[in-house]
Amino acid sequence: MMKAGLKDNRPIGVFDSGLGGLCALKELKKLLPNEHFVYFGDTGRTPYGTRSEEKITEYAASDVRFLQEHNVKAILAACGTVSAIALERIKDTCSVPLFGIIDSASRSASAATKNGKIGVMGTGATVKSGVFETKLSALGDYEVYKTACPLLVPIVENNLIDTEIAYHAIKHYMSPLVSTGVDTVILGCTHFPLLSEKISEIYPDLTLINSGAEAAVSLAEYLMRENMLCDEKNGLTEYFVSDVPNNFDTCAAVFMGGALGGEIKKIDIE
Amino acid sequence: MMKAGLKDNRPIGVFDSGLGGLCALKELKKLLPNEHFVYFGDTGRTPYGTRSEEKITEYAASDVRFLQEHNVKAILAACGTVSAIALERIKDTCSVPLFGIIDSASRSASAATKNGKIGVMGTGATVKSGVFETKLSALGDYEVYKTACPLLVPIVENNLIDTEIAYHAIKHYMSPLVSTGVDTVILGCTHFPLLSEKISEIYPDLTLINSGAEAAVSLAEYLMRENMLCDEKNGLTEYFVSDVPNNFDTCAAVFMGGALGGEIKKIDIE
Repeated sequence: MMKAGLKDNRPIGVFDSGLGGLCALKELKKLLPNEHFVYFGDTGRTPYGTRSEEKITEYAASDVRFLQEHNVKAILAACGTVSAIALERIKDTCSVPLFGIIDSASRSASAATKNGKIGVMGTGATVKSGVFETKLSALGDYEVYKTACPLLVPIVENNLIDTEIAYHAIKHYMSPLVSTGVDTVILGCTHFPLLSEKISEIYPDLTLINSGAEAAVSLAEYLMRENMLCDEKNGLTEYFVSDVPNNFDTCAAVFMGGALGGEIKKIDIE
Repeated sequence: MMKAGLKDNRPIGVFDSGLGGLCALKELKKLLPNEHFVYFGDTGRTPYGTRSEEKITEYAASDVRFLQEHNVKAILAACGTVSAIALERIKDTCSVPLFGIIDSASRSASAATKNGKIGVMGTGATVKSGVFETKLSALGDYEVYKTACPLLVPIVENNLIDTEIAYHAIKHYMSPLVSTGVDTVILGCTHFPLLSEKISEIYPDLTLINSGAEAAVSLAEYLMRENMLCDEKNGLTEYFVSDVPNNFDTCAAVFMGGALGGEIKKIDIE
């Protein structure tokens, strides 16, 4: 349903357990350069992927609450773990459209696979949740194979992407997955697309689904369809984090592919 | 000063940012089998080593407060990061003797080195703090070389110790250190002793200092000297954590070298 003539100049909220969601923000800014954004990275409590479902849900609820206090018009949980575990449970507490990465990544994988065999890589919590199998089975008759890849998160965060360590970690996690015959693999954690190039060097025939980028496209399409785009020029981005660790600048630059271009404010999320 | 005839049956408190401190607890239980222990692992906020000094201090203060509420007679911060960053800052808030791992590990390294060249491995926060250099320079004229090894923590926690990944990570971090000519290396994070065997396979001539084990010996000696040992038999251990993640049992077994042998209670540290 198109809402003719309506515009919405409120910012878009994006959050992640840490800085991995900056990859998705980068995609959103490319698609929607006029939009204002509020990014929150829960760097004081990262990572979420190794925590219990209860803790992940509690943390995600506080992140959404924080963004709503900033008068956002929509929220993207740019975090595979939050999308898999917490989104369904907290959506009733959120008064604006709340997007995760599961639906759009599942649709893309469904469209991309030729042989119906789809692989899923995620954090321990995401893989255990079984959410991708559920979504994919609603889209068609697919064989789904999955693998928890906990070490890939710190490999990316410590900028060890171009090392032997990354090579062996990718092989360690992906060899069993590839041996099942999957032709398409969902990178179900917003950190993993930074390893895409490395993965494609090792497994050149795989189609990789960048879950953060797919979610960015979905959100952009939604805002266009609902006539909720900003009609100002040159959107601004506010960055909030719950801690500023030693390696913050390096890490942020890895995910954003350059400087953040905005002030970073530290807040107390607890 | 010996305090003749005094005994103290209160438990010993041990805490860590997560489960790495269980290694030190295991050593303490071997040395002092009759003692009661209260262990707290801050699994809901782990890891500390990648956070800011402010956050580490805030978290460590709450951990010490929690243990003091359990009427402990002494506390061991079985965490390299807390020992390096927070202990000096919070010791005034603690009414019982508070031990870290820095002093004892420094003394052992000082005693072990033949050529006066000592290496230090730790988390990013520990290495940045410079605390080992300060302690060692008070003990003698040593050349100190150090390296931050952030990936070794998740490698141990995900039980990837016997993989090519661990081999390449050790080489990545230690090659520059070893090339300086150090003959002794302080494993300045309570996770790292689990990699000792692997490290010694690659670098058989290095003397490795197990910081958690050294701290356990120091604390045991202190309690003996002060006549503060427990005079009951077969001490009990209470375990508290701030989250029970998916891989908790595996992870705990890795650190403890077997089952915990006690009930694990989840508490809200925030």
